[in-house]
Amino acid sequence: MTDIDKEALALHKKFQGKLETHALVKVKDKHDLSLLYTPGVAEPCRRILKDTSLAYDLTLRGRTVAVISDGSAVLGLGNIGPEAAMPVMEGKSLLIKELGGIDAFPIVINTHDASEIIQFVKLIAPTFAGILLEDIAAPVCFQVEDALQDIGIPVFHDDQHGSAIVVTAALKNAARVVRKNYEDLRVVIVGAGAAGLAAAKMLQGYSCTIDSCQKVSGQKSVKDLIVVDRVGALAVGRDHQNIYKQQIAGISNKKKVQGELAEVIKGADAVIGVSGPNNITKSMVKSMNSDAIVIAMANPIPEIMPEDALAAGAAIAGSGRSDRPNQINNSLAFPGIFRAVVKGRLTKITQPMKTAAVDALVDYVKKPSPTNIVPDMFAPGLAEHVANSILKVKNQ
Amino acid sequence: MTDIDKEALALHKKFQGKLETHALVKVKDKHDLSLLYTPGVAEPCRRILKDTSLAYDLTLRGRTVAVISDGSAVLGLGNIGPEAAMPVMEGKSLLIKELGGIDAFPIVINTHDASEIIQFVKLIAPTFAGILLEDIAAPVCFQVEDALQDIGIPVFHDDQHGSAIVVTAALKNAARVVRKNYEDLRVVIVGAGAAGLAAAKMLQGYSCTIDSCQKVSGQKSVKDLIVVDRVGALAVGRDHQNIYKQQIAGISNKKKVQGELAEVIKGADAVIGVSGPNNITKSMVKSMNSDAIVIAMANPIPEIMPEDALAAGAAIAGSGRSDRPNQINNSLAFPGIFRAVVKGRLTKITQPMKTAAVDALVDYVKKPSPTNIVPDMFAPGLAEHVANSILKVKNQ
Repeated sequence: MTDIDKEALALHKKFQGKLETHALVKVKDKHDLSLLYTPGVAEPCRRILKDTSLAYDLTLRGRTVAVISDGSAVLGLGNIGPEAAMPVMEGKSLLIKELGGIDAFPIVINTHDASEIIQFVKLIAPTFAGILLEDIAAPVCFQVEDALQDIGIPVFHDDQHGSAIVVTAALKNAARVVRKNYEDLRVVIVGAGAAGLAAAKMLQGYSCTIDSCQKVSGQKSVKDLIVVDRVGALAVGRDHQNIYKQQIAGISNKKKVQGELAEVIKGADAVIGVSGPNNITKSMVKSMNSDAIVIAMANPIPEIMPEDALAAGAAIAGSGRSDRPNQINNSLAFPGIFRAVVKGRLTKITQPMKTAAVDALVDYVKKPSPTNIVPDMFAPGLAEHVANSILKVKNQ
Repeated sequence: MTDIDKEALALHKKFQGKLETHALVKVKDKHDLSLLYTPGVAEPCRRILKDTSLAYDLTLRGRTVAVISDGSAVLGLGNIGPEAAMPVMEGKSLLIKELGGIDAFPIVINTHDASEIIQFVKLIAPTFAGILLEDIAAPVCFQVEDALQDIGIPVFHDDQHGSAIVVTAALKNAARVVRKNYEDLRVVIVGAGAAGLAAAKMLQGYSCTIDSCQKVSGQKSVKDLIVVDRVGALAVGRDHQNIYKQQIAGISNKKKVQGELAEVIKGADAVIGVSGPNNITKSMVKSMNSDAIVIAMANPIPEIMPEDALAAGAAIAGSGRSDRPNQINNSLAFPGIFRAVVKGRLTKITQPMKTAAVDALVDYVKKPSPTNIVPDMFAPGLAEHVANSILKVKNQ
């Protein structure tokens, strides 16, 4: 155990987790009880019965979101199941509360079956203003999120869209720093799971459902992008590609490059790791174009440590780690996104809203530099800035 | 709207409900983040992966219960659906927190189907230490609770067992006051829903599953009891009885009395209303035995107002109302029961535990009187007393 591990364990033990439920109104006597419980509570019930939207005004629904996971793809830990995933979900709920100013409650569920997860979320929807799906493995996560877009409240799969948003913002600012045109970057994504495929769509300016992809108009996007999985580059006609990988193959890798990462990465301007620890080597980084950008998101151990990427000649290195510069973590985005969900009473999170979140992260950094391509997680007003940017495109 | 209604509505609007999530640990800087989130959070995850029971030590699971409802049988309001039921569930969660000292979170779900409710509770079970089912209509509630007794955490249907516990305690102390032998009381229960059937079982000392009833040994119980529904007295062989009513008919009404309430109540020592407003008339009370006990639990408007029951000659009158003496409300029991669930890490709530909860409520009242047959809801240490009483029989 590292010192951080020991300290983290002691802290979790001391507080038995890190989030509690807390009374906004005290119940001291029978009069309080008659207001908060019977008979007074019947009046808010009757009001909501007449107009369901009043649930947002009269109950915690109007300010509370859920963080839901089946524990099938947690951090670098993999499929650890619901019980062991709870510390992470409680942590994400804490960040939504502390950074986004929005109440959040963590829920872990005892199934990995797509249709059971879909059914569960539909059933619990009347409790919350929005739902953050976390750490659900691909390809189940694609099917789940796609089926839940029209249930009346936003359902946002963070590992896909949260990751895509922060990666896109980081890459845009990194391109500014190395004075390359974002649209002309040659980008390689390592990992074809939830984050990798979603980042491929967003960087190239596509919005996709399970059935089809649409190019989003009027948006700057990367033209040369290849996604690499364990087998090699995704490409039209390649074997061992599920339907989600096939879809991305169809919109990327236009030259139908074949081969493993060590081949494909040669001459690339940027590499984005969303796979697992130590998957990018120093010699791979050395083979990249000059002023290379290395974003290694695997957590807690990245594809390559930032200092190793820089030693191998990269101009800019980022990771998900709190203890290094350029911490590119989904928590830059989701507290602000869910602040928008609550403040705007959103019914879904649209493609323009995701783009607005990227733009907010990009323009929050006034002077990007090699060690400053994304905002600090504790940057004052960051969640408000992201939320306001999203709410401006609410009616698009 | 009454004044209470107006004040209650304003209060719910002001606070947007009454419960929030609250950080036990603040996240001020990157070091905090590295402990509460990545990379430190991985250590509690790994510990729980090795030993699932550590989820109780290292996450909110160890101190948090859920209040779950489909909104199908709420207060006197009936089937108002999940959104409109939320103020009540938020209120019950608040009482568990404020009276029981246990974290609780309200969840409303979008189905009235028994198998969907069962599936939902099974899926969410790894999140909580216990589940309080509330305001689910009979007969769905019987099927739901019966199917969830062996899922590893207690699932307690308050409308059945909570009501049965407080009614039994009230009747035992009322019998002491009027100096009648509890076992010799002739009791009529008005209403054959969740509360009525459960009270019939508990007063007569039976523990039942869907399949069969067992007489609990060594327990004082009422020998002469009749349950009356809209049709009349439940009795073996009567028409219009679902299987749950048939089961109770089989263990009650030994003389096979027929007829409606106005007939059956004549000469009774006690009547327990768990049906709806104004179902017991003054003339019915006048027809009862001397020193009659009238417990009218319908909420917010009881079967008969206590002052009317007393005017008609009753010796003791109780109701669920906060604004009258003898408030016999489930919140006397469930905060203490769920305190026991959490403190004792119970896996189910057994029949001896329910009996222990009754005993705790009975003996908390040192000197029962006509206006003091149950403890005050705010009686100091009541939840602890109930919890300790339950934990003493944990291994029975």
